[in-house]
Amino acid sequence: MSTTKSNAAVMSAFNQPIEVRPLPLPATLAPGDVLVRVTMAGVCGTDVHLHKGQLNVPLPLIMGHETIGEIAAAGGEVNDWLGNTLNVGDRVSWTVGMPCGTCRYCRFHRLPSRCLNRKAYGVNTPCDCPPHLLGGYAQHHHLRAGTAIFKLPADLASESLIGAGCALVTMIHAYEKMPIRWAESCVIQGAGPVGLAALAIASDAGARPIIVIGGPKDRLDRCKRFGADVLINIDEVKDADKRRGIVLEHTNGLGADVVIECVGIPTAVQEGWPLARDGGRYMVLGQYCDAGPVSLNPHLITKKELEVYGSYGSEPHHWARAIEFLRARKDRYPFHELITHRFSLEQVNEALDAVASWRTGKAVICPNG
Amino acid sequence: MSTTKSNAAVMSAFNQPIEVRPLPLPATLAPGDVLVRVTMAGVCGTDVHLHKGQLNVPLPLIMGHETIGEIAAAGGEVNDWLGNTLNVGDRVSWTVGMPCGTCRYCRFHRLPSRCLNRKAYGVNTPCDCPPHLLGGYAQHHHLRAGTAIFKLPADLASESLIGAGCALVTMIHAYEKMPIRWAESCVIQGAGPVGLAALAIASDAGARPIIVIGGPKDRLDRCKRFGADVLINIDEVKDADKRRGIVLEHTNGLGADVVIECVGIPTAVQEGWPLARDGGRYMVLGQYCDAGPVSLNPHLITKKELEVYGSYGSEPHHWARAIEFLRARKDRYPFHELITHRFSLEQVNEALDAVASWRTGKAVICPNG
Amino acid sequence: MSTTKSNAAVMSAFNQPIEVRPLPLPATLAPGDVLVRVTMAGVCGTDVHLHKGQLNVPLPLIMGHETIGEIAAAGGEVNDWLGNTLNVGDRVSWTVGMPCGTCRYCRFHRLPSRCLNRKAYGVNTPCDCPPHLLGGYAQHHHLRAGTAIFKLPADLASESLIGAGCALVTMIHAYEKMPIRWAESCVIQGAGPVGLAALAIASDAGARPIIVIGGPKDRLDRCKRFGADVLINIDEVKDADKRRGIVLEHTNGLGADVVIECVGIPTAVQEGWPLARDGGRYMVLGQYCDAGPVSLNPHLITKKELEVYGSYGSEPHHWARAIEFLRARKDRYPFHELITHRFSLEQVNEALDAVASWRTGKAVICPNG
Amino acid sequence: MSTTKSNAAVMSAFNQPIEVRPLPLPATLAPGDVLVRVTMAGVCGTDVHLHKGQLNVPLPLIMGHETIGEIAAAGGEVNDWLGNTLNVGDRVSWTVGMPCGTCRYCRFHRLPSRCLNRKAYGVNTPCDCPPHLLGGYAQHHHLRAGTAIFKLPADLASESLIGAGCALVTMIHAYEKMPIRWAESCVIQGAGPVGLAALAIASDAGARPIIVIGGPKDRLDRCKRFGADVLINIDEVKDADKRRGIVLEHTNGLGADVVIECVGIPTAVQEGWPLARDGGRYMVLGQYCDAGPVSLNPHLITKKELEVYGSYGSEPHHWARAIEFLRARKDRYPFHELITHRFSLEQVNEALDAVASWRTGKAVICPNG
Repeated sequence: MSTTKSNAAVMSAFNQPIEVRPLPLPATLAPGDVLVRVTMAGVCGTDVHLHKGQLNVPLPLIMGHETIGEIAAAGGEVNDWLGNTLNVGDRVSWTVGMPCGTCRYCRFHRLPSRCLNRKAYGVNTPCDCPPHLLGGYAQHHHLRAGTAIFKLPADLASESLIGAGCALVTMIHAYEKMPIRWAESCVIQGAGPVGLAALAIASDAGARPIIVIGGPKDRLDRCKRFGADVLINIDEVKDADKRRGIVLEHTNGLGADVVIECVGIPTAVQEGWPLARDGGRYMVLGQYCDAGPVSLNPHLITKKELEVYGSYGSEPHHWARAIEFLRARKDRYPFHELITHRFSLEQVNEALDAVASWRTGKAVICPNG
Repeated sequence: MSTTKSNAAVMSAFNQPIEVRPLPLPATLAPGDVLVRVTMAGVCGTDVHLHKGQLNVPLPLIMGHETIGEIAAAGGEVNDWLGNTLNVGDRVSWTVGMPCGTCRYCRFHRLPSRCLNRKAYGVNTPCDCPPHLLGGYAQHHHLRAGTAIFKLPADLASESLIGAGCALVTMIHAYEKMPIRWAESCVIQGAGPVGLAALAIASDAGARPIIVIGGPKDRLDRCKRFGADVLINIDEVKDADKRRGIVLEHTNGLGADVVIECVGIPTAVQEGWPLARDGGRYMVLGQYCDAGPVSLNPHLITKKELEVYGSYGSEPHHWARAIEFLRARKDRYPFHELITHRFSLEQVNEALDAVASWRTGKAVICPNG
Repeated sequence: MSTTKSNAAVMSAFNQPIEVRPLPLPATLAPGDVLVRVTMAGVCGTDVHLHKGQLNVPLPLIMGHETIGEIAAAGGEVNDWLGNTLNVGDRVSWTVGMPCGTCRYCRFHRLPSRCLNRKAYGVNTPCDCPPHLLGGYAQHHHLRAGTAIFKLPADLASESLIGAGCALVTMIHAYEKMPIRWAESCVIQGAGPVGLAALAIASDAGARPIIVIGGPKDRLDRCKRFGADVLINIDEVKDADKRRGIVLEHTNGLGADVVIECVGIPTAVQEGWPLARDGGRYMVLGQYCDAGPVSLNPHLITKKELEVYGSYGSEPHHWARAIEFLRARKDRYPFHELITHRFSLEQVNEALDAVASWRTGKAVICPNG
Repeated sequence: MSTTKSNAAVMSAFNQPIEVRPLPLPATLAPGDVLVRVTMAGVCGTDVHLHKGQLNVPLPLIMGHETIGEIAAAGGEVNDWLGNTLNVGDRVSWTVGMPCGTCRYCRFHRLPSRCLNRKAYGVNTPCDCPPHLLGGYAQHHHLRAGTAIFKLPADLASESLIGAGCALVTMIHAYEKMPIRWAESCVIQGAGPVGLAALAIASDAGARPIIVIGGPKDRLDRCKRFGADVLINIDEVKDADKRRGIVLEHTNGLGADVVIECVGIPTAVQEGWPLARDGGRYMVLGQYCDAGPVSLNPHLITKKELEVYGSYGSEPHHWARAIEFLRARKDRYPFHELITHRFSLEQVNEALDAVASWRTGKAVICPNG
């Protein structure tokens, strides 16, 4: 490699400005390791939570867990997760979660998303020791041997994959745990990235009608384009009972077969259980961060014979599905349109502010211009 | 019929003594209707709730929804639910729930336990109009055409069926919604009738280990006889964290594959979610009455990738399963031993007091001596 | 009613011309019975089998099990299956299967499609005793009390429902037993009515790619319009190994996640098992008639870890789903286009000939002009 | 290591006597590799098939895929599959299948039993190149890094694990794919090792009644001890229709909820489908070898709405379950009693003859005396 340093946006303290500084590139790569030149890094809402210290991650940290780049160097022959040979210059993305593969969740329960020793690039991979570059907000990203890398097809725009972001694989995982059956009615709580991903999968899987509860208006307009049948704007219908009334109107007076919570605020679950019909299914998908307890009535679970599911993170095969889906259905679900703001690496603090203030669709950082 | 009146225990007001008085027997029976001479009626904990007015049922009411009797008369040829011919003198029991068969839950969703017009003998069948005798606390019980009646096999003691009570069919329904797989670890919260039924099914289905959390000691001793591997006495281990510690000790430090809540107090659910391993399943079975909301953290559902299920009431095929199970496994699960107190019809108030004070195993009323 | 007779096409012997003759209309209708003036009756491929004596049905018989008509008279107040009030003049259809509701399959196993005493209009309902008119090839159709009747929405053309025919509900039932999950690859063997229904559901449920194996060319062209991604014309690719080769090309060299047999010829199953990937699922949907055994290797089931499913007939809720689907998706799946031939009642033999010779899309009889 | 050679039973040609000869022990062990001193190796019926050349495996081969031994040496620190540290002298067993971990079945479909590059110790691991000792019929067994090794608990006799053999893990895998639900009726075709394993799991999972069809009498007697409710001796009831008649007698005239084929002869599947009730489930478990096609009627699948499943091989977590099950339930399912014959390594041909002639319960080879 011609250079020996790579610029990275390093978070050294919570709630403080992030600073861009050079970090050493590896002199050599261990077998299976890969060095990627980052072309686009998504700024996820989770990064805002990380920056606020809400997830108690180790510092200093290079954030960025939705990243695309080009192979700069590799430690010997490396294949992508699906067996494709990787060459310098190939455009790739990868899963951020790195399960240990040996704990009881990884092995006995085949539940790697709950690995007891899970590492996630850009989340709990501090940058003070080599190989330093373990997050997307940097000119280069180091991928350890065993990372599930995906060579991206030429007809898939980087904007599509980053536009969908980790929200899409999270939803594909959730779908695997709680499939939406053809022709089921579906309520989606939340019109943000996760809600939009849920809408796209529900629509593509034949759910009908699909009712989205959320806001603001521009997000709901996008939901309309992505196939929502009914939109309930929380800025307009401020009373939860009235919102429930609208849901009942479209679901034979009983509630929806399936409700997917994509909000992240605990009270959404409170509002959500009564939106499902008796015998219906409820997915708690948005509560990735611990926002504390809320008052809930377990009698509803018994009486309504509800099924309530949770899903966390994703696995490599969900990424494979996501890439194939985005490629095949780009006309029907134009995730690339979500990207409204592009920032340089130096604008990292500006980028986080923009996401925190909900001013953006999706913001990305392009560390190499 | 030689007599024209039948004595019944009529609840005319909540929290007031129940009075035994004669009610008219039907002069003739419509086609399919059946009149039963009651030999044994279980006093369920739910009856105590009914008597306290906690479920807001219509009055006046003859309670009793776990009943066995002998066919006294029938309106023409009547078969039991499984197609057996019924004759005068046959010993029978029946399902108490009478779904309408025509609402959207009964038809489209095939969920008759959530029928929009559900009637249940002894619960919402007031006795001020004919046919009056629609509860078990009486010398006779009127069964409307269409009731799912079961002729009892000679080798099944009435004490077994009433000892198991509606708790067993409730659990069999719950098992159908959330099967316990062979060799799964299982925590049962509660050692009352529902907990004991859950234990019997879990044990018979090969769960291992089975950990029961409950009390008092005599109930736990019975759980031991019914196959529990580990007993946690809430009177001795008063700290919920310590109880969790014991569960973790027996479940590889992760929590149980399956947890079944059979307590009925909302805080049990609070304690319960952390008892399941990540990716585990949780059944909210005890919250039949609305005991109000409780503080719960939905983040746990997401992070633990939990599945939470509810189940309510039962259907006729669950009764058929229960009868067959009790007959076949009476040695391994001696439900007949639960019956510790027998009362005459006139002692109905005494019977309810005994159950309310948890002094009894299971109490029964034998209205015909 | 002003008339006392209704013309009906009566099959008195197998393989003989069917004769149109008047049969008595009921003088009065029992409570719940309905008399319908038939406007359109589908001629199903099964009717050809019936006419050839391949299903050994009782004679004399009025065939026709895909029928739409207008309410002519009713025995008192009658509701449709979903609770809508029925009035004279309402356009309706109905399920042809009439399960007994009391056998062990109906009750204990909740499998009414396998009712031990099942009656099906137009199939095993001979017309030599009252109420005679129990098939669709007649000016009037008698519906016994308890028939699942559906009032048709104004925006659903009769041609859509008859164009889809019993094939669609059969497939909806099959989907319920073996759901196709979002983004699964799917092979459909057969491009006839059942294959087209399978294609429509698979496409609407998000399967991808969908490969149809069948012929002739015009049927495959229609499959293209209905969303098939890959078409394999059996008239062109005559070698089964080559057909398998094409399937493997589109399924990562492994075979499809899901294969649905919609052919009805036993050798299709022989060809079909190797089209599924290991761990895949196979639905035997076309073998409604007994066409005898075929040479099959059960080792494939073990080695490929296949799941093989069967599905038979349908239930009322499948009809409800079908009606809603056809109404909502008529643009995407134009089943009404299938109807290529209309016949009068007198042309019944001509209609059967046309279907037998595969000259038609879908043929219908309009008994009242 | 003090010795440099280890005696092994080498199969150099099919259908020829196997010869015991010394093969080199490894001079050093690569990191993660383990050398085991074999104490007991099961002689599986599959080994007889291998010896007859029916599976076309590469030669020369050391057979033996059910093996227990003591750790003789290890390449550095090695843990067992569940995380226990392994020390010299520890008694261990291991899974024989070694999936590649990188093919589409291993990764995308999470179906390692169908790995495209699967190696299995004692099956397709020829012994002409180092590390030579890759089968159980030898004084030492070499385990490559990554093998799923299990340290055996002190209270589990080697005889229990080898008595259950690979049949038990095969059945545990099958159960995972097609669970037997509590209280289902169950027919098991075959009373050999796989049938006995199926019986043990079905019994422990609460199936009832369990009907075993097989022979000879001593095997059926053992089935009785393992919990079978009904035994059908094929030597006595030679007519398949009569056998079906007995099954119907015990299953309400309809057939069993679940049928498990554990015979390995294709005609068993022919006899088996009609033994399941409509809507029932059928597991093709015995057809591990390709014994060719048989005449089967796919119409039965459609008409009976059958579900037919296959399962092949096993995964490490099935071994973990098996070990735990055998330890916990040794009194109820005394698999150790199956071992009727012990042979030295030199008696290997005698051992295979004994198994081939069905003279044994289970035969084992003890290569170190």
